Amino acid sequence: MPALHDLIIRAAHVVTVDAGMSVIADGAIAVDGGRITAVGSAGDIGSNAHEVIDAPDRILMPGLINMHCHAADGLFRGLVEDLPLEPWLQTVWKAEGAILNRTTCRLGSELGLAELLLSGVTSVMDMFWFPEETVAAARSLGMRIAAGGIFFDYPGMDGKLVDRRKADAEAFFASHPADGFVFSGTLPHGTYTVGPEQLTVAGALARANEGFFCTHAAETLAEQATVTERYGRRVIEHLDALDLLGPRSVLAHCVHLSDGEIDLLAKSGTHVVHNPTSNLKLASGFARIPDMLKVGINLTLGTDGAISGNDLDMWLAMRLAATLHKATSGDAAAVSTAETLRMATINGARALGAADRLGSLEVGKEADFLLLAMDRLHAVPLFDPMTHVVYSANRSDVTDVFVAGRQVVRDGRLVTCDVDRLVADVRALAPAIAASIRS
Amino acid sequence: MPALHDLIIRAAHVVTVDAGMSVIADGAIAVDGGRITAVGSAGDIGSNAHEVIDAPDRILMPGLINMHCHAADGLFRGLVEDLPLEPWLQTVWKAEGAILNRTTCRLGSELGLAELLLSGVTSVMDMFWFPEETVAAARSLGMRIAAGGIFFDYPGMDGKLVDRRKADAEAFFASHPADGFVFSGTLPHGTYTVGPEQLTVAGALARANEGFFCTHAAETLAEQATVTERYGRRVIEHLDALDLLGPRSVLAHCVHLSDGEIDLLAKSGTHVVHNPTSNLKLASGFARIPDMLKVGINLTLGTDGAISGNDLDMWLAMRLAATLHKATSGDAAAVSTAETLRMATINGARALGAADRLGSLEVGKEADFLLLAMDRLHAVPLFDPMTHVVYSANRSDVTDVFVAGRQVVRDGRLVTCDVDRLVADVRALAPAIAASIRS
Repeated sequence: MPALHDLIIRAAHVVTVDAGMSVIADGAIAVDGGRITAVGSAGDIGSNAHEVIDAPDRILMPGLINMHCHAADGLFRGLVEDLPLEPWLQTVWKAEGAILNRTTCRLGSELGLAELLLSGVTSVMDMFWFPEETVAAARSLGMRIAAGGIFFDYPGMDGKLVDRRKADAEAFFASHPADGFVFSGTLPHGTYTVGPEQLTVAGALARANEGFFCTHAAETLAEQATVTERYGRRVIEHLDALDLLGPRSVLAHCVHLSDGEIDLLAKSGTHVVHNPTSNLKLASGFARIPDMLKVGINLTLGTDGAISGNDLDMWLAMRLAATLHKATSGDAAAVSTAETLRMATINGARALGAADRLGSLEVGKEADFLLLAMDRLHAVPLFDPMTHVVYSANRSDVTDVFVAGRQVVRDGRLVTCDVDRLVADVRALAPAIAASIRS
Repeated sequence: MPALHDLIIRAAHVVTVDAGMSVIADGAIAVDGGRITAVGSAGDIGSNAHEVIDAPDRILMPGLINMHCHAADGLFRGLVEDLPLEPWLQTVWKAEGAILNRTTCRLGSELGLAELLLSGVTSVMDMFWFPEETVAAARSLGMRIAAGGIFFDYPGMDGKLVDRRKADAEAFFASHPADGFVFSGTLPHGTYTVGPEQLTVAGALARANEGFFCTHAAETLAEQATVTERYGRRVIEHLDALDLLGPRSVLAHCVHLSDGEIDLLAKSGTHVVHNPTSNLKLASGFARIPDMLKVGINLTLGTDGAISGNDLDMWLAMRLAATLHKATSGDAAAVSTAETLRMATINGARALGAADRLGSLEVGKEADFLLLAMDRLHAVPLFDPMTHVVYSANRSDVTDVFVAGRQVVRDGRLVTCDVDRLVADVRALAPAIAASIRS
C-alpha cells in the first residue's frame, strides 16, 4: 500500500531541471509537508493523496527564480523613456525621491511581486529602498524573497543618509531570521555610487550574518570608465581588491567585462545575473554570456525593474538569453535550451545558497512549481517541452503556481492578492507620479 | 441629429497611428460599411449606432501588419533547433519535403494565421508552397493576406519543378483578383536559390499584374558571400542590376548591408521587412535599422515562420525592434516608440501599396483594429499608451480584433475558427512530422 500523500500533481510533461535535465512524459510529483516526496511517471506515483490535480494539457516545471529586481519600481513603469542609464537614473531618482516612502514602497512591491508571482516566479532577489516593506509584500503574497540593507553614499530615496545604512542593514538581519522564505544579505547600489568604505562595511556585515552580498556591477561603459578613473582599476578588479567576490556574491549585469574580470569571477565562484531586457532598453550592451558559460561562471537571470523593462517578464528574459548571444556570436548553438532553463531556475537557487532546497523538481526539495498551458496555438505542435518553455511560452501561459506546496495562483489568478484593490491603489497614485518629473 | 452608425467603439485611449501619431483619451471610432467614418473623442462621436461597444479599460489601435511570414511552417515549430540558417534550412526542407502537400499546407496555414489573428494581426504577407491554400485559410479566418507564386530553382517542397513556376504564378494572379482582402505578387525564395532568369520572370509578372515582388535578401553573411562569388556583386546590387528594386518590392531581412546597398534601397523606394526574432535565433545578426531609418527607408516588421521563431509574435517583434538597436548602437533613443509602432502598422500598409486603406485609424480607412487590455498588472500604471504598446504589452492582452468592421476575435477567442478541431488536427499530424527528420 503506497503512502498517502498530501498532494499529487500529474501533467503531460514534467520538466525537472535535475542534473540530467530529465523530462518525464505523463509524469507526476507528490508533495508532503510542502516538500517534494516523489517525482516520476504518473503510473508509478499513482493517486493516493488527499488532493490530486490532473493537468493532462500542462507542463509541470520548477518555479522561476528572478535574481535581480527592483519590484517597487513598477510604480514608475514607462515614466522615463529613451535615455541611457546615467541621465535616465537622474530622472528616475527624481521621481523616486518625490514619491517613495514606506507606504508607496509597500504598494510598489506588491505590484511588482504580484506581477512576478502570476508569471510563475516563486523566488526573487530584490534591491530597493525600505526592503522590509518588500519582504512584507512577499510574505503576504506567499513567495520567497532575497533582500537586505541598501548602501548608497548619497542621500537615499528613502530620505536616509549614509550614516544610517549600517544600522539599518544590521536591523534587517536581526528582524529577518532565515525561515526558508527570506534570504538576507546586503545590497550596496554599485561601485560608482558606494565608496570602498561602505562597500567593505556591507561585505563584512554579509559575512558576519552568513548572508549574500549583491551589487550592480559593470553594467555600462560609463560606469567602467568612472570606476577606472577613480580607483585605477576596473569594476570587478575593484570588488576583488576589496575582497567582495566569492560564492556568496551576486553581481547584477556584468555587461562590460575584460577577459581578466571574467577570470576573476570564475575563480572566485561569484554569481552573475544576466538582465537582457534592461541591457537592451537602456542601451547598456550585450553581456559576454557565451564566454562566461565557457569558464563555468554560475549565470542566473533577472528582469531588473519595470522602470527599465517595462515589465517583469522572466519568460522574455529566458528567450532573450537564449537568442541574443546566438546573434552576437554568430553561433546558433550558443546558449542552449538547457543552459537557459538552468539560468532561470537551479542556477538562481545556487546563487541563493539554496540549491539543495530550490530550483528543480527533485525529491526533498521545496514544492515550488508552476503549470504551463499547452493548449494555446503557439504551443502546437510541441515536440520538446524544454524548447517550448524557452522559445515559445509566454508568462500568460502560466495557469497555476505553488510555493512550498501552497497554491498561490489558480487558473491564471492570484489567490493571495486582491488584484482589483492593488490596481486601484496604484492608479490613484499615478497622477502624483506623473507630476513628480514635471517640475 | 447625428448619423446612425453601424458600430461605435469607445476606449480609454485610441492610438491612431495617423500622421501626427495622435492618441485620443476617452476616444472612439465609428464604423459604417466596414470603414471608419469618424475618429475622435467619445463625447463628440456619441452613441448613435446599431451597436455600441464600450471598452473603458482597453486601448483601441490599428490591427498589426505582419510583413514576413511562412504561416504553414508552424507545423514544424520547435522541430529543428540550434543550427545556423544554411544547415538548418537543409533539415527544415527535409521535413517540409516529407510532410507538405495541399492538405497539410492548408492545415499549417490555418494554424499560423489563427495564431496571428488572435494576437491582433489583421494583414499578413506570407511566402509558402501552395499559396492558394494559405489564401483560402486567410479567407476562412477573415483576415487580409498578401501572397503569390513561389519561385525556386530546385525541386520544391510542393513537388513542383522550376518549369511550373511561371504558369503557377500567372494562375495565382488570374484566380485572385484584387478584392481588398488578397494582395497578389510573386515571391522568389532568394537570390541564392533563384537564378537571374527566374528572378526576372518573377519581376516581370509582378509588374504586368500590378502586384508586389518579395524575396529574402541579405539575411546572412553566407548568403552575401555566395551571391558575391556567383555574380560578382552583393545581394542588393544584384537585385538592382536585375531591375528588381522599387516601390513594389519588399525585401525580407536585409541584415547584412553595405552602405551602398542601403543607398540603393533608399533611392529605389524598396520596402524592408525587419524580422528580429528570427535573426537572433538563427544567429543571422543585427539589421542596420538605425542607419536605414536615417535615410528614410520604409521599414516594416515581420515574425518570419514559427520554425525559426518559435512562434508568430508581432508584439515580441515590436519590442525587439525597439530595443535591440539601442544596444547595438549604444543609443537609448535609437528606434523610437513611434517609429516602432509605425513599423508594425502603417509602414506595412505602405509596403502593400495600401496606405490609403490600411495601417491607421483614420476616416475613410478599413475598420481593421484591435482592443488591448489595460487591466493586467504589467499595464499598471500606464503613463503613455504608445510606450505601453511597444514595451510592455503582450499578444495575450489582445481581447478583440476586427477586420473590415467584422469581429473575428471576441474576448480572446477566435470567432472564425474551431480552435479545438485545429489543435486536434495538428496534433494528429505531429508524429509523422517528428519522424520525418529521423531517417
